[in-house]
Amino acid sequence: MITAPFCAAADWGTTNFRLWLLDASGGVLAERSSGQGMRTCLPDHSFNAVIEEHLKGLDAPADLPVVVTGMAGARGAWKEAAYLDTPAQLDALHAKAVRVEEAQRDVRILPGVCQRRKGREDVMRGEETQLAGACAEGRRSGLFCLPGTHSKWVRLQEGRLTEFTTFMTGELFALMTGHSVLADMIAKGTGDSTSPAFADAVSEMLGGTALTGRLFSIRAASLLANDAPDARARLSGLLIGAEIAATREALQGDAAATLIASGAQAGAYETALSVAGVGCGILDGHDLVRRGLYSAALALWPERSAT
Amino acid sequence: MITAPFCAAADWGTTNFRLWLLDASGGVLAERSSGQGMRTCLPDHSFNAVIEEHLKGLDAPADLPVVVTGMAGARGAWKEAAYLDTPAQLDALHAKAVRVEEAQRDVRILPGVCQRRKGREDVMRGEETQLAGACAEGRRSGLFCLPGTHSKWVRLQEGRLTEFTTFMTGELFALMTGHSVLADMIAKGTGDSTSPAFADAVSEMLGGTALTGRLFSIRAASLLANDAPDARARLSGLLIGAEIAATREALQGDAAATLIASGAQAGAYETALSVAGVGCGILDGHDLVRRGLYSAALALWPERSAT
Repeated sequence: MITAPFCAAADWGTTNFRLWLLDASGGVLAERSSGQGMRTCLPDHSFNAVIEEHLKGLDAPADLPVVVTGMAGARGAWKEAAYLDTPAQLDALHAKAVRVEEAQRDVRILPGVCQRRKGREDVMRGEETQLAGACAEGRRSGLFCLPGTHSKWVRLQEGRLTEFTTFMTGELFALMTGHSVLADMIAKGTGDSTSPAFADAVSEMLGGTALTGRLFSIRAASLLANDAPDARARLSGLLIGAEIAATREALQGDAAATLIASGAQAGAYETALSVAGVGCGILDGHDLVRRGLYSAALALWPERSAT
Repeated sequence: MITAPFCAAADWGTTNFRLWLLDASGGVLAERSSGQGMRTCLPDHSFNAVIEEHLKGLDAPADLPVVVTGMAGARGAWKEAAYLDTPAQLDALHAKAVRVEEAQRDVRILPGVCQRRKGREDVMRGEETQLAGACAEGRRSGLFCLPGTHSKWVRLQEGRLTEFTTFMTGELFALMTGHSVLADMIAKGTGDSTSPAFADAVSEMLGGTALTGRLFSIRAASLLANDAPDARARLSGLLIGAEIAATREALQGDAAATLIASGAQAGAYETALSVAGVGCGILDGHDLVRRGLYSAALALWPERSAT
């Protein structure tokens, strides 16, 4: 006997799309993913066509409801789901979900979270759903790090998202690698976060150094030695070290941070945190976002889960 | 009667070329400038042709010697003039000048300065000649700030360049403005360093904030307010503020910093320094580099100045 799906759940980011069919207990019946992120769908406003195509590919019933998180809810994207202000109750994301009228089925987009404090303005879309997933797994308090193009460091207190800071770490790494005077050196670099140069650079930043006053040393060291094997590892260490140096005060109250990451990125942040003497647990972002979407779906469609 | 020139002096940077004919007392008889910087001359190795063209344009005698500073002396450029190590005696740059054999006349390129301390590796070409000019004017000690694509903060002690740090401020501003997720907001911004947002951003950085954790606030503030009049001023304030925060310890021993800059750049740094409670004197970089080149020429060709 084939289990009937309870709902579909989509994580719709800037550059990626991911869809799951879930059963009533949150188990994965089927899944698909593609590069059809918001950026791909914006020009033709093809959100509805894209999601229906993937639902069809998974043989989803025509009346199956869908819960969505991420950039699909940005202003000007599929349909704007206004930000919740901090402090934001993460088990109540569903209460502010918006319904997409143009869809043939019941589609709800979860809101992002914003912080309005002057000079500390910040926004997220998608990460709050990962964190809602962490709450659902019992991780309701503490400091969470979500590395990426725009890394987020987030404080949870009893299931409420109280404050957060975005670091442009990944974007700066890409800009430096692609367009800066360091690009040649970085392209030649062979090191990674297991290189001593990575840990050394993290240490330097923990010493209270200004990032912009260290980046050029990568170029200078290469000119002086006529070689730059560590350029890439050093740039990565300086950038990630800057994040940890900035959050160190917040870290001191915690036994450990929770890292929501995987692969090489998780390894790099784990190493950098250990240089700072901070332990960390690692959770998988895809699992968490699916868990957060499932929790919201349970609250949105209680009658479906009861059947 | 037309005064016979004593020497020619060239400031040959990455993107600009500037040439003066000087009399025996350092006065300017004539000058030219162009966009034929090192980057333009490298592909065809056209250094000799370019400088001869400009010397001809100024009716320079065929045997007039030329002293050169800047990127023309980089490895792979016209002819490498090896770096002097810190601490570097600024009135002795001429002693390590290299002669360009391929030139039809006596052409000498002054060395740059390097710092080899691990993690603090740094290099300059051209700024040391401006600083030699400051020394010749009696400014032989103190902290100097030379804003630019790669801003330099330099410590002089009794005419010796003892240590320095390059900040990638100008390059980061350009990368953010041209290629980052902030580009749209910055393009729309109308503010400059006279905007309150500039001084506020400098203050924020002086509070010990991490730059990479504040850049994204420019985007978030714009999304939340649906407007971003201050984006450009705020980015500039954060970047320049990061420089001053990093050098603040060094600044405390000094009554004032000396700014080698002009125009809007000088205004921005003067404002930022005043937010930090630091006074500054302002010197013009073109005047100083000419003065430094002249001092070197006097030492290189004493017999010519005596006639």
